[in-house]
Amino acid sequence: MPPGCTAALCERVVQARSTPLDDETRAAARRAFINWLGCALGGTSDPVLPAILRVANELSGPPQASVVGRAERFDVVHAALVNGVAANALDYDDMHVPTLIHPSGPIVAAALAIGEHVHASGEELLRATVVGIEVACRLGLALFPKHYDAGWHSTSTLGTLGAAAAATLLLGLDEMRTAHALGIAATQASGLRAMLPNPCKSFNVGQAASRGVLAALLARAGLDSATDVLEARYGLFHVFGRFGDDAEVALPFGDPYLVTQMSLKPYPCGVVIHPLIDAALQLAAALDGDAARIERISARVHPRAIDLAARRHPQTAITGRFSLHHAAALALVRRSAGLDAFDRADVDDPALVRLRERMEIAADPSLGPSQARIAAVTAEGRRIEAAVDAPSGSPECPLTDGQLRAKYMELAARCLDEGAAERLYAACMALDTLADCADLAVLWRPANDRGGAR
Amino acid sequence: MPPGCTAALCERVVQARSTPLDDETRAAARRAFINWLGCALGGTSDPVLPAILRVANELSGPPQASVVGRAERFDVVHAALVNGVAANALDYDDMHVPTLIHPSGPIVAAALAIGEHVHASGEELLRATVVGIEVACRLGLALFPKHYDAGWHSTSTLGTLGAAAAATLLLGLDEMRTAHALGIAATQASGLRAMLPNPCKSFNVGQAASRGVLAALLARAGLDSATDVLEARYGLFHVFGRFGDDAEVALPFGDPYLVTQMSLKPYPCGVVIHPLIDAALQLAAALDGDAARIERISARVHPRAIDLAARRHPQTAITGRFSLHHAAALALVRRSAGLDAFDRADVDDPALVRLRERMEIAADPSLGPSQARIAAVTAEGRRIEAAVDAPSGSPECPLTDGQLRAKYMELAARCLDEGAAERLYAACMALDTLADCADLAVLWRPANDRGGAR
Repeated sequence: MPPGCTAALCERVVQARSTPLDDETRAAARRAFINWLGCALGGTSDPVLPAILRVANELSGPPQASVVGRAERFDVVHAALVNGVAANALDYDDMHVPTLIHPSGPIVAAALAIGEHVHASGEELLRATVVGIEVACRLGLALFPKHYDAGWHSTSTLGTLGAAAAATLLLGLDEMRTAHALGIAATQASGLRAMLPNPCKSFNVGQAASRGVLAALLARAGLDSATDVLEARYGLFHVFGRFGDDAEVALPFGDPYLVTQMSLKPYPCGVVIHPLIDAALQLAAALDGDAARIERISARVHPRAIDLAARRHPQTAITGRFSLHHAAALALVRRSAGLDAFDRADVDDPALVRLRERMEIAADPSLGPSQARIAAVTAEGRRIEAAVDAPSGSPECPLTDGQLRAKYMELAARCLDEGAAERLYAACMALDTLADCADLAVLWRPANDRGGAR
Repeated sequence: MPPGCTAALCERVVQARSTPLDDETRAAARRAFINWLGCALGGTSDPVLPAILRVANELSGPPQASVVGRAERFDVVHAALVNGVAANALDYDDMHVPTLIHPSGPIVAAALAIGEHVHASGEELLRATVVGIEVACRLGLALFPKHYDAGWHSTSTLGTLGAAAAATLLLGLDEMRTAHALGIAATQASGLRAMLPNPCKSFNVGQAASRGVLAALLARAGLDSATDVLEARYGLFHVFGRFGDDAEVALPFGDPYLVTQMSLKPYPCGVVIHPLIDAALQLAAALDGDAARIERISARVHPRAIDLAARRHPQTAITGRFSLHHAAALALVRRSAGLDAFDRADVDDPALVRLRERMEIAADPSLGPSQARIAAVTAEGRRIEAAVDAPSGSPECPLTDGQLRAKYMELAARCLDEGAAERLYAACMALDTLADCADLAVLWRPANDRGGAR
């Protein structure tokens, strides 16, 4: 990590505050926001939320920012926590596949909390989101894969710095205070991968958001830290491992912005499973849905998919979202791996269990992370194959605006009526012209809660 | 890490709630508490506090617990944060030398916040402190030195789990919820050594306290986590490095409790410097204070002391507390390395600079961490030597109760008048008979603030 790297990165962050977004970046940021908002609306009813809300209600300071899809308002740190948890709860939030970071999860949660509190414009909110994603994913590119392989939940660790960067932008901190904020964020960065199959997975995402916000507030209040935390001895890269190509961390922004390279998921489950789902859906179409005729299935995927999601018989809703076998069975039996399929969490459905028993899924190092191969043999001895080289939702094969809208609407329906969901969608489509992003909160408050704000 | 280790540790924690402390342990816990309280009282005026207080005032929820030596009351998380920062600000809080953990810093801060909120008895507060220290230091023994050498500020990382354990005890969590709390704590564990020479050093200690409290509250509210976080794949030992002897983590408590093995510092500076200070004070006595006659000084210390504190000319008050050269010069010139000596932070005093220039301090691998050797040659060619094998304040050479009382009184004088400080001291000496530890807060509120509580 070159000396001055932290300072150079902070210079980029501060410059970006007053640099207009180009149209492509703005559109990507808007899509990221809409995707995030849908996930957060859909996640508010997830079983992980009540415990988090209970503690936020117990501890929150003055109501400064709102909870998406709910009536509560909390201080900015707790609002960021709750919204970050909700946005990640369904595993449906966006993913930067080269780093396995869910960037919007924590970063939009942080930006929105501060943005609402300081009455930032929609354009400022989008810029903060773009910059936060840039910081987290550049750090991710420098540290991946060994940081992740060592057991760090990098959405949480590096998301903390991205969230802090987004918050500093909206608070208007100068380069020096931004450097202190990144230092305070880095010394709070945490999150173990042991949490990925349990409810703390989403807590990790929420804590990245809340700590990023706290770091920016502490830096603004005058807490000094290391101003060279990336390259310092015992700093971020030293302690979390400096393994990759870190030369690009502090290069100029926007060539292009990494927000243009996100995967927006069509399936609410681990992104490493998606190529196999697409392949299994092709197979299901060829079989015309008659999965009961399948005798055996063999599939090959990228080795990391095996490492993360080789679970033949998941036992819980969360682990079902991290099971190659379950997801492929869903695709074959139900011809769907969407929200309802996973959410019903009927991981014990005999038709699914039967198929999972007949599946052999192996790591194939010759495949990339976007690829999968699947073959089935039917009772009559017919053999059918399918191959996927870029899953739907990936930058190579992005969701259309219509698909994204449909995803958003399905998620929003969990807490808003259709008219309210559509009005909110329209406001998001015009987010860059919105004078005060706090106006969004009025649109997402559920009808039955509108009188009961905290 | 053996399977079941987390469960076994949680069983010990829950058992300890209803196990009376033996007299030796109780006395050690009381001394740890008094030492902590003095440090926190003395630390309230440290320059690191205002930024933390500003943010706590901005974000705090309902007033649940008090800030030592001040009128403010905050929610338990912010009270733990502020008190943890204050207790560590002067580098005067206790130290478990075999792990370089300041255990009471975060753990008493967490226990006191929860204890005050739930109106625990003084005895319960002491038990929670003993157990929190036990958890943090046992984990430290298993991970030291490589965890620390890798750049982790282990007071912060492992202190988070100790603070959580103390909080679970006072909240009355059962073994399963205690395991979840340790999981939530572990995934929040953070703290970089890059912060040690800047104000975030104390923030790291405060955040260990506040996150431990948050972990216990979330576990109580029903957030599930890994219940095997110590031994799990991608869990604490896996990710933070499983390097040492971890067999003792889950052995029965109290044989003896590690709280009986703390160093209570006589000097407000890095503990690795203390043997050299004692040696330099011996030299000063032999010279009868005539440090101006010294032509040159050579000293040998444990290699870790060089690694942590080889700073010939510190530039700030904090780095002065981590400078072997500055501390030895203080001892030789002023015959003191106490609160005033360091606090004045007159690191540019020409008499001190002169002596620091004439000092050669080298690492000697044949010396233990408690040892130091020093020799001086005077202008007349006289050579004087001194050797220390156990510094004052160490378990081998503990502060007397009178010395501890004097330390407490000097620190308390920074925000309390003498009578108030004495009344508070008397209450602490009878802490195990106090029915409600919240009664302490009345005694430490400064006279001029008593009407202005938040």
